[in-house]
Amino acid sequence: MPRYRLILEYDGTGFVGWQRQDQGATIQQALEKAIEGFAGHPVTVYGAGRTDTGVHATDQCAHIDLERDWAVETVRDATNFHLRPAAISVLDVQVVDGEFHARFSATGRAYRYLILNRRGPPALLANRVWWVARDLDAGAMDAAAQRLVGHNDFTSFRSSHCQAKSPVKTLDRLSVQRFGEAGEMIEVIAEARSFLHNQVRAMVGTLELVGSGKWSAADVTAALDARDRSAAGPNAPPQGLYLSAVRYDSESE
Amino acid sequence: MPRYRLILEYDGTGFVGWQRQDQGATIQQALEKAIEGFAGHPVTVYGAGRTDTGVHATDQCAHIDLERDWAVETVRDATNFHLRPAAISVLDVQVVDGEFHARFSATGRAYRYLILNRRGPPALLANRVWWVARDLDAGAMDAAAQRLVGHNDFTSFRSSHCQAKSPVKTLDRLSVQRFGEAGEMIEVIAEARSFLHNQVRAMVGTLELVGSGKWSAADVTAALDARDRSAAGPNAPPQGLYLSAVRYDSESE
Repeated sequence: MPRYRLILEYDGTGFVGWQRQDQGATIQQALEKAIEGFAGHPVTVYGAGRTDTGVHATDQCAHIDLERDWAVETVRDATNFHLRPAAISVLDVQVVDGEFHARFSATGRAYRYLILNRRGPPALLANRVWWVARDLDAGAMDAAAQRLVGHNDFTSFRSSHCQAKSPVKTLDRLSVQRFGEAGEMIEVIAEARSFLHNQVRAMVGTLELVGSGKWSAADVTAALDARDRSAAGPNAPPQGLYLSAVRYDSESE
Repeated sequence: MPRYRLILEYDGTGFVGWQRQDQGATIQQALEKAIEGFAGHPVTVYGAGRTDTGVHATDQCAHIDLERDWAVETVRDATNFHLRPAAISVLDVQVVDGEFHARFSATGRAYRYLILNRRGPPALLANRVWWVARDLDAGAMDAAAQRLVGHNDFTSFRSSHCQAKSPVKTLDRLSVQRFGEAGEMIEVIAEARSFLHNQVRAMVGTLELVGSGKWSAADVTAALDARDRSAAGPNAPPQGLYLSAVRYDSESE
């Protein structure tokens, strides 16, 4: 029973998130159906990150067990064929040993959040960014973001539906910078071993308050210290969020 | 009767091109309807480039005459409001003098063409790139592209529907380079005072033959010299093409 690791890109717009559920299309179900379509037997797809409704991925990682030894190119191309027209793409497939688990073996995750900061709404990037028309101070956002980096109790940035046992996480990186030809895009990068439910969106929504001048960096520290979700800013909308990397120990050795 | 210059971004996917016509939605008609919605009188929108069905723009330029002196911010925001939910965005509005004409005053145009060159199909960039799964040699494409730069008869790269009086144009730049984190994107940039109908797509479709090893640079020269559309490669698909800049003399002075 060979195990395969899949690298995935998807547009989360038309899905109610990663995880299998009764109502609405999910990434996991679409993948399972596509893989079953060529493998000819039921398959469970395990993902490294359970992205929410509308959240995208450029490098989600998943694993599957197949009953036969398929060539990795066949797994990639046949899954892509059966996925059509779903906005999910298998970018790469590798054979891994039976100990590998996409979720539990992961030692690091990175999310990217994109804000389009200009007066005109997004035409080409509709459903791909959070459009903020008021001018944001990305430098102030980056400075305030450093207040959240480290080993902290992130209760203030955690969904009430979060199933993690502890609200304490180590945030390794939270950076904010402008990019793009006209400097209209703001990119937030968040890196940690793992995140709480809605943590990145709650952090970005809070930093936006700093960028627009409503909050100071000290207010962000106070929100963290409050250990109360209502003390921090609102969740940034899902369409700006991308699961952009999953790291495994073997890669860092 | 003040004249305004508009800078526009649009997703060409849902439109049958820029130009007003009887069948199907066009960018020009959507803009005219939106502007009439707040100005309260009929308006004609003149664009610098008449993009085809499915072709996008990141910096199209247009002009309009309005009966009242509206603040430029009002023209921008009110047009954007009335455009919803069309995938067209007014990025900037300036007052220009009555001699300015978006199409006839333009002294340079730039197009950008994006090829996604990887095995997995586009999920996040569906309708935004030409997906080519076979590996392309971007260096060979760039070298061959130089065979087309200069003052040439582009009959071999011209649609049979082209209405230009002469097939002779001066192509100032045609460059091909890889970019992106994994080097999966290939960008073609074409610059000229003006282009023939379908010229950029015919040139890109021809360069793809070079990139995939079917054609040599000498074949591109032979195709140009043939002055026969059937001697060059097929048109690259519209969804990879972006009108990316329009230049006016006043900007270069």
